[in-house]
Amino acid sequence: MEFPPLASSFEIALPDWIADELAEVPDVLPDRQDRVALVNRLAARNWREGNGGPFAAVVAEADTGRIVSVGVNVVLSSGVTSAHAEVTALGLAQARLGKWNLGGERLPAHELVVNWRPCVQCYGAAMWSGITTLALAGSGPEVEELTTFDEGPMIDNWAEEFERRGIRVLDGLAREDALAVFREYREALDAGEITVYNAR
Amino acid sequence: MEFPPLASSFEIALPDWIADELAEVPDVLPDRQDRVALVNRLAARNWREGNGGPFAAVVAEADTGRIVSVGVNVVLSSGVTSAHAEVTALGLAQARLGKWNLGGERLPAHELVVNWRPCVQCYGAAMWSGITTLALAGSGPEVEELTTFDEGPMIDNWAEEFERRGIRVLDGLAREDALAVFREYREALDAGEITVYNAR
Repeated sequence: MEFPPLASSFEIALPDWIADELAEVPDVLPDRQDRVALVNRLAARNWREGNGGPFAAVVAEADTGRIVSVGVNVVLSSGVTSAHAEVTALGLAQARLGKWNLGGERLPAHELVVNWRPCVQCYGAAMWSGITTLALAGSGPEVEELTTFDEGPMIDNWAEEFERRGIRVLDGLAREDALAVFREYREALDAGEITVYNAR
Repeated sequence: MEFPPLASSFEIALPDWIADELAEVPDVLPDRQDRVALVNRLAARNWREGNGGPFAAVVAEADTGRIVSVGVNVVLSSGVTSAHAEVTALGLAQARLGKWNLGGERLPAHELVVNWRPCVQCYGAAMWSGITTLALAGSGPEVEELTTFDEGPMIDNWAEEFERRGIRVLDGLAREDALAVFREYREALDAGEITVYNAR
């Protein structure tokens, strides 16, 4: 078997519009609410640009608020189904720092900020990334009801299992703003303007 | 905020030794047991080469056995914690085919072959990749007991939830061979020769 033609690498890349979106954003967002507002804004633009679902994530230094990476769901633009916002933001943060463990020695504590509770894939991705805080705009069944995305079978005590591993969960930081993004997505979906890409 | 210096992409790449390992492997493995034997062999070499844990995966055309991609756990060599064997193999298959949905129209049915039941992250990654069969050397608590890796909180009826989404689960295809790989890994771990990279 030849290797290639078997692919030997793949890339997850952010769209160009992210640069415009970040141009006026400071390097440091000391107020966590500003970090959550940023992910809601990126999520709202992401699906309109055709990159993937209405999801965004940011990795920040938990104490200072220095932004380490931003991610959006790029399943459609990258052609890779694991390229959810969390996987993208965490991979970009690890690539930037050159460390697989964002909680490693001599590193500041890192947090992942997301516009809704992670799906089952990103639940695991967050768990082993080294983050010490998960900051969520919201959680609950509304994401599946509104967007129609399958979030996968999750255990009930998902937040406890994060806490047990030393990852603090802050939930409900901007719930209504997050839901507004999903409602707009749903309107476009009902109007037949977009594709939901869950393969199964 | 400038973008870069924020990273705008990251890459998941296979190690060079994969080419040697595949040189004598036919393009097509009609017998599923040969596909499972391949993932066990790749898993056994992967941790010795220092790329990551003792885990490998293959995407194949389910009926013919044509190999579409191979993946190994490259968390340590890629520096990205989501780069488990399944995420790597699925991403490489999607990159090769230029399709995010391996179960899309005008494509043959695809299967993911793994040397043990996926962790919670790869549970979701497999679920939305478009595969129609998940073929496992084995499943059960032994992987955590032997390797000490955290596989994450999984629901009890994980296989049913795959089946409910049209993904057939074939389990126990080469259980003893898979366990032999984990036992060798454990011996090296107990001898202080390797790092388990679960951040939490």
